[in-house]
Parts: sequence; C-alpha cells; structure tokens
Amino acid sequence: MNPQHHPFTSVAERQVETVGESELISRFRSWLGDTCPDGAYGIGDDCAIQLLSRAEGYGLTTMDGVGYGIHFDDGVPPEGVGRKLMGRNISDIAAMGGQPERAVVSLWLAPDVSVAWLESFYRGMAGMAREFGVEIVGGDVARAGRGVFIADLCLQGFAERPLQRAKSCVGDSIWVTGELGGSLLAKHYQFTPRVWEGQWLAAQPDVHAMIDVSDGLGKDLPALVGAHTVRIRTLPVSDAAGICAAKSGRSSVHHALNDGEDFELAFTLSASVEKERFLQMWRDRFQTRLTCMGEVTSRGVFAVEFEDEEDQTWGKGYEHF
Amino acid sequence: MNPQHHPFTSVAERQVETVGESELISRFRSWLGDTCPDGAYGIGDDCAIQLLSRAEGYGLTTMDGVGYGIHFDDGVPPEGVGRKLMGRNISDIAAMGGQPERAVVSLWLAPDVSVAWLESFYRGMAGMAREFGVEIVGGDVARAGRGVFIADLCLQGFAERPLQRAKSCVGDSIWVTGELGGSLLAKHYQFTPRVWEGQWLAAQPDVHAMIDVSDGLGKDLPALVGAHTVRIRTLPVSDAAGICAAKSGRSSVHHALNDGEDFELAFTLSASVEKERFLQMWRDRFQTRLTCMGEVTSRGVFAVEFEDEEDQTWGKGYEHF
Repeated sequence: MNPQHHPFTSVAERQVETVGESELISRFRSWLGDTCPDGAYGIGDDCAIQLLSRAEGYGLTTMDGVGYGIHFDDGVPPEGVGRKLMGRNISDIAAMGGQPERAVVSLWLAPDVSVAWLESFYRGMAGMAREFGVEIVGGDVARAGRGVFIADLCLQGFAERPLQRAKSCVGDSIWVTGELGGSLLAKHYQFTPRVWEGQWLAAQPDVHAMIDVSDGLGKDLPALVGAHTVRIRTLPVSDAAGICAAKSGRSSVHHALNDGEDFELAFTLSASVEKERFLQMWRDRFQTRLTCMGEVTSRGVFAVEFEDEEDQTWGKGYEHF
Repeated sequence: MNPQHHPFTSVAERQVETVGESELISRFRSWLGDTCPDGAYGIGDDCAIQLLSRAEGYGLTTMDGVGYGIHFDDGVPPEGVGRKLMGRNISDIAAMGGQPERAVVSLWLAPDVSVAWLESFYRGMAGMAREFGVEIVGGDVARAGRGVFIADLCLQGFAERPLQRAKSCVGDSIWVTGELGGSLLAKHYQFTPRVWEGQWLAAQPDVHAMIDVSDGLGKDLPALVGAHTVRIRTLPVSDAAGICAAKSGRSSVHHALNDGEDFELAFTLSASVEKERFLQMWRDRFQTRLTCMGEVTSRGVFAVEFEDEEDQTWGKGYEHF
C-alpha cells in the first residue's frame, strides 16, 4: 500500500469538490490532450458526434469499469488505474479482432477525491488510448458517497470479420498468448492488450473462435469452446503464479486458471492447419509468446481432461458475485 | 419514502449475492425480453456486434447514470429508476435530433441488492427502451460496497443532421417544450423524452441550436446561446415549481430555472420565421406545449435581461460538485 496512491485527500483545495464541475471538465479535456477531439467530435454537447463513412463491416461496443477497493487499491498508482480502465476495454475489442476507436467515460467521485490523483488517472488513460489510436469523446461525472471512486468506460470499435466465442469445432487446437496467473502482483494494471495479435488472428480464416482471458481460463475456456470436451496438455504458467502459489499454498496451475485479469487472447484453430507452420507465421510477426494448450476432442458438454493427472483441479475462474 | 422501493434486502435468498453472476446475467436477458437482440447482436460475448450498413450521417454517443442516494431515493419505484436511466440518455439523443438505437449498461451492486428490485428496475428500463426503439445489447456487472447501487448507461444513436448547442444567432427566438421546475416531486423519473419533437426540429433548417434541459435552464440556456445576451419575456413555469416554491420560500421562477431534470428541449429559431406560423406547424404535429421565451438580442458575453423586473434573479442551474 502506498499512501501516495490513495485517491482521496483531506486538503480541501486539492479536492474535486473545491474545483467544481465545470472547471473539472475543462481540466479533463486538457489532461486528455490530443486523445480528445475538438468541437462537436469531442466533449461538450449532449452527445459526441461521429461522422459515419460508407464503411461496411461491424461496429463493436463494450463497457467495463474500475472501482476503488474492487479493481484496485492503494498499491496501484493512479496512472495504472487509468491504463487498466482503458486497457481492459481495449482487450475486449482485441478479443473480437477489432480496432478500438472511441470511448466515453462516466465517473462517480466522492467529494474528497484528489484532483492530482485524478489528473494522473486521466494521463494514464490517455496514454493507453494513444498507443492504440483511441479517442475519448465524452462522458459524465457525478458526485458519490464517501470512499467511492468508480469509473465506467464504454468503448466502440470496428471489425471487418469479428471473431466470436463458442464457434469451436472438434479437432480444433486451443492456443493462448502470453502467460497466465498471478496478475494481482502487477499485471492486472501492467498489461498490453493484444490488439495487433487479435487483428491478425481475425484475418486468418482457420481461426474459429477467440476470447480474452479476463476472468481466468477456468471461466473463459468454457466460454470459448462451448459444449465440447477439451484435452489440455500444457499451460503457460507465469512466474507470478508461482510466487502467488508459494504464498497461498495452492498450486501455480490453480492460480493460472483462476486468478483472471491476464488480458491474454485464447483462440481455437482448425485441425487442418499444421501447428508448427502456424507458430512460425506467428513468430515472423510477433514477439508475444504463443502456446498450444491442447485440443477440442468431442462434442456434448464442456469438460476438461488433463494429460498430466496432477493438474486435474479445473477451477471456475472469477465470479463477481 | 416507501420501504418497498428500498433497493436492498436483508433476506439472503433475495440478494444478488445469493443468485450469483452467471444466473443474474441470464435473468437480465429474460427481463429485457425483446429489447435484447439474440446471439452476437446482444449480450454474451466480449463485445456486442452491430452490422454497419452503407448509411451516411452521424453516429451519436452519450453516457449518463443513476445512483442511489444521488439521482433517486426510496421515494422512487424501481421501474421509475430504470425508466429514468434510459430516459435521460434518450433525452440527450433527442437534444441532437437523433434516433436512439443501442445501449449498454454497467451495474455496481452492493451484495445485498434485492433481485426483485433489480427485476423491476430492468423492466422499467426495457419499457422505456421499447417506446423509442432502443435495443439493450450488453454491459457489465461488478460488486460494490454496502449501500451502493450505481448504473451507467451508454446510448448510441444516429442523426442525418445533428443539432448542436451554441450555434445561435442575434435575432433568433428562444423556445422551450413543456413546463419547467419542481421535477423533484415526480417528473425527474416520470417524463417523456422529446424524441419525435427533436427529430422534427432537426429537420427544420431554421432551427439553429438545441439542448435538453437537464441541469436547469439557468445552466442550459447559456450553453444553448453561448456568448450572447438574451431577453426573456416569459417562462413556462410548472405547477410543481409553484408547490416547491410554497415549501422553499423561493420563487417559482427560481425553481423553474434551477431545479433541473426537466428533460424538455430548448432551441433557437431564425428571426426569418414568423412565430405564429411556426407554432401552428408545431400544433399540427404535437400535443406537447411549446413556449417562445424570448430572443437573442446581441453578441458578446452571456447575459439575461428580463422583461419582468421581478424575475431578475438568474440562477446557475445544477452543479454536480
């Protein structure tokens, strides 16, 4: 816990309440810099306006939030909170193979939220937005009770061919980017959404289904493969999962399956594709680690068979209630 | 205050915590009924998907929320809370002359939120959505601390010619629909967003600027006319404003200007249009009351001159901080 990361302040002149709503909104705009477009396309009217072109394809919409004491605590710097809020929504667009485009943000602030904290939060959010070409076009701010900092973000994007979940077939191989588990140590706010990887995967006709691992593979794998039995041969367990396991007394595989907030992409690939050749194509483009975890073996109900008997405790991932 | 309208329950089996996240989301879908589209176009994937057509025009995006103890209390039935959440966002789309289309909802729930309360909230939200052709395509749900019910809604829409604020000219007449003030008595959750009126107004080339009166005319009129002096001759003060005035000791005009949450449309009309003729065209189409409040008299800074000297206390409307 770092007292400098605490979102609230007892010094009146540093509180959002003192600054007031109108001044606050004009500061939001300055903190966002070039990520907030001018005039009607940005902050300031009843709605943000977007010029529609003659594009054909699919619009994508997702909405996720972060709350103090829920998705972050005083261990996380405010820039990290802003990056997390933007990044977890970008990850949802990445999971469909889309390009993130435009965001609106809704804030619920206790009167004593620190303006300095809020500035760092905004700069973190804008930094992540800039990396992936996202504009922040508007939003809302409301007063909330003591101890509350909640931010919701709605992100729109575009995809020519969105990759959905649950379109997997028997024989498909199952893949995941990066490493899993132990996100609580740092990765939950220090991650790179797999946007470019997702777009490339969506352009491969042999990729059948995709999801981002946000609630843990234990919950997200069933969502990816639907009513199929899968055989798991290997999991890319992170070092952080090992560190968490040493503390918790559970296995590192347990952490890899259940911790969530990995923000990696899991996908299924047609049996017709030779795995080594696919992996070579991947390595020609990306430095991101890619692991073939196993295969979809039969249709019916969701079930997991482990090649290694010791790993047989399949978890349920993260449930918010 | 009505104990039946309290969002929280002490009976464990009636709490959202007991029902659990997955079951809750499947109930959301059933409560939404035909307002939630099937398959990829609705709830259930990383993003909601929207098939883009070759339409030309403008996309509109707005986001507003409701919080317990902030935007409503136990005096408001849960259906009314749901209608308010959807309605205040629809009103923002109406204020641009647009057609509301698709919504996503983010919920922050204390563990003891009542499932029955939540069902009524959803049915109210879906009812309002149905009246204006809105689909609810996805969202998010997260656990929050004790006493918290917060819901954010992001609404997308479409307009061929969006009507912005602050495009008024010297000589323009200034109009408002309905009546103003005293919304706290009931109108803040019992209102009809002026969607059809807004669309018709946006199709009139002589209408220059438009806004919905959500923070009170005291704040929203400056936003409508920008750096202009206006002369106000009359205000459509509601009976509810009079009732509030009798209690508060302030004038009913004060309530009409500052209470906010009227969700009426204010707009400016070119001096070239004869007012009586315009009013007749309006009455041929709408039963909604329409009042010409005054005129834009000169350019420079925002200022208000009242024809009636007694009304000269111009308020600032509602500030959230």
